[in-house]
Amino acid sequence: MGKGRFEAFSDGVIAIIITIMVLELKVPHGENLEALRPLFPVFLSYVLSFTYIGIYWNNHHHMLHATHHITAANLWANLHLLFWLSLVPFTTGWMGENYFAVLPTALYGVNLFLAAIAYTILQLSLIRAAGEGSLIKKAVGSDIKGKISIMLYLLAIGIAFVSPTISQALYVTVAVIWFIPDRRIEAVLKDSEVS
Amino acid sequence: MGKGRFEAFSDGVIAIIITIMVLELKVPHGENLEALRPLFPVFLSYVLSFTYIGIYWNNHHHMLHATHHITAANLWANLHLLFWLSLVPFTTGWMGENYFAVLPTALYGVNLFLAAIAYTILQLSLIRAAGEGSLIKKAVGSDIKGKISIMLYLLAIGIAFVSPTISQALYVTVAVIWFIPDRRIEAVLKDSEVS
Amino acid sequence: MGKGRFEAFSDGVIAIIITIMVLELKVPHGENLEALRPLFPVFLSYVLSFTYIGIYWNNHHHMLHATHHITAANLWANLHLLFWLSLVPFTTGWMGENYFAVLPTALYGVNLFLAAIAYTILQLSLIRAAGEGSLIKKAVGSDIKGKISIMLYLLAIGIAFVSPTISQALYVTVAVIWFIPDRRIEAVLKDSEVS
Amino acid sequence: MGKGRFEAFSDGVIAIIITIMVLELKVPHGENLEALRPLFPVFLSYVLSFTYIGIYWNNHHHMLHATHHITAANLWANLHLLFWLSLVPFTTGWMGENYFAVLPTALYGVNLFLAAIAYTILQLSLIRAAGEGSLIKKAVGSDIKGKISIMLYLLAIGIAFVSPTISQALYVTVAVIWFIPDRRIEAVLKDSEVS
Repeated sequence: MGKGRFEAFSDGVIAIIITIMVLELKVPHGENLEALRPLFPVFLSYVLSFTYIGIYWNNHHHMLHATHHITAANLWANLHLLFWLSLVPFTTGWMGENYFAVLPTALYGVNLFLAAIAYTILQLSLIRAAGEGSLIKKAVGSDIKGKISIMLYLLAIGIAFVSPTISQALYVTVAVIWFIPDRRIEAVLKDSEVS
Repeated sequence: MGKGRFEAFSDGVIAIIITIMVLELKVPHGENLEALRPLFPVFLSYVLSFTYIGIYWNNHHHMLHATHHITAANLWANLHLLFWLSLVPFTTGWMGENYFAVLPTALYGVNLFLAAIAYTILQLSLIRAAGEGSLIKKAVGSDIKGKISIMLYLLAIGIAFVSPTISQALYVTVAVIWFIPDRRIEAVLKDSEVS
Repeated sequence: MGKGRFEAFSDGVIAIIITIMVLELKVPHGENLEALRPLFPVFLSYVLSFTYIGIYWNNHHHMLHATHHITAANLWANLHLLFWLSLVPFTTGWMGENYFAVLPTALYGVNLFLAAIAYTILQLSLIRAAGEGSLIKKAVGSDIKGKISIMLYLLAIGIAFVSPTISQALYVTVAVIWFIPDRRIEAVLKDSEVS
Repeated sequence: MGKGRFEAFSDGVIAIIITIMVLELKVPHGENLEALRPLFPVFLSYVLSFTYIGIYWNNHHHMLHATHHITAANLWANLHLLFWLSLVPFTTGWMGENYFAVLPTALYGVNLFLAAIAYTILQLSLIRAAGEGSLIKKAVGSDIKGKISIMLYLLAIGIAFVSPTISQALYVTVAVIWFIPDRRIEAVLKDSEVS
């Protein structure tokens, strides 16, 4: 099976997720600054999640670039990732509307953690389909960034019960780590002159 | 008429359906576990429907893969399927918010039943367009899975008035049956070396 | 300018319009038939509008099939059409929630009328870009269906103030007229063996 | 990296933004003209923002037409633009529901201003990727329209605190300036016979 419709469907779902999140920013009734103030934490959490979904789209894009065929297992691994990403608008809204309280901050981390696990499973599934000597296998390499992220998410979930602020700082840290797109894959793609 | 825009439109609608369903998971006002608890059945029904819509996308994808031309009748058969799928967010939300009560559980089954009928009509319509000796005719075969699903939906609708729990178990059973993508089509496609 | 991205954008907007309309079907609080009853007119109006948007997508698709180049004027004529179509979820919801009352029924007609005018403008704009001897000019022909629809919409708007039921019947009539896709275009395309 | 998926993702997000804005037009409870009246300013602000998003799609489309390769920096510059555009439904709704009051009018201008800055950054980022002698560099030229727009937005933000009506007139003025698509790029593309 070709990857065209696979990519198009993923892009569609990710584009909808990144856009409907803004619906959590409910238009306030008043027309002054007071009316806007309670929305500030919701806005901040929106910025964070927009960045995360942007990172996922970016990495998904790069990973698929190093892939040629899609198996049925890949398809389900991808839907599994999209499932956890689809919950990000909910956990983002809950965290924002509760001013980054303990439980919402922890749940946000659980969501990011499960999405990261799903992304890792998708990566492994694509590598298995392509074979051990494949381009994608080389491109992913030891996936240090992915492993660090998962550990930081776990750390942030635990710390949320002590200080949600530190958890938030950890979420921002992981976003910064990933902000720079996956040079490994780009480098390997360039080397192999496949792209 | 080519199938490119046909697939793109179907993908778009299915991607939107699978994503807007999450809007039924309304962000709760409290910040503790109590606030989250009433959402649990809504979440469960979301998982079930996400899987179903994923299965439909998957099967739609495979079926179109064995097709080359799209007629006007195919187009309307497809819109008919998308219509019933578009109601899934509504019936899912109703079932989840009422803790899998009798009538919502039955209506959910009616929705799945009508979507399955619409899928069968689309399949027949594509076969008629392609001809009796066509690839898609061979790929679909006797469509045992489809017939079993329809019978299980009817059973689940009736049983809902006795025990909604058994109906839920039947919905999960059908999802599991379809979870494995349609190997028949893949096998025939491989045999005929068309894909 | 090629028509690929033009079609993709139109498909995206139309797919979103046809799908978010279902959000007007608000999940009711009760779990019995009584809770569902007030939604019945909303459901009926949803069926009607789903059919209309489906017809627009279908005809848009066929019209673009007979076109090769898109000018800046075509682009704006298309956005103008999408604007009126984007209001259909609103006028549909208003009509459904007020049990097909006088003013909502008339406004629905105004919306359909303006969308039809916009479609006619887009058609003329595409013909002007392609030239008088073009395929699309021949395919559109005298556009009798389009002219009849516009007159029936005007009639329905006026009659709504006497009997909304007759207006509804007229809306259904127009939908039935268009339900059969534009054979003229298909026929001309086949003749010219361009498609 | 090719620009196909880049364009598709941008189109998806822009199509969703332009369509979900209509959700701010909440279906009123009454069935008479009185019920519709408070929606009139929301409708007007919707028309304005629909035009703006249409202009952005149009210009984005033209700009990408003069581009061949997309770098990682381009991707983030694009997501940055989409971020500010994604807030347009919110600022539009706030302005419409408050009858074009002072602060909502100013905030709408801030949103347009930041989107314009993001568009300029994307333009510069694409030019840097393509090189100084590139087609896009020539096509963009001195970008007088862009510079005028940014200055008019700043003016409108300031004036909003004196007369929101003048600010609205300025927003309409900028829309009119851009309504005519970017002839510069089309002209250069034609000259170079690349398109």
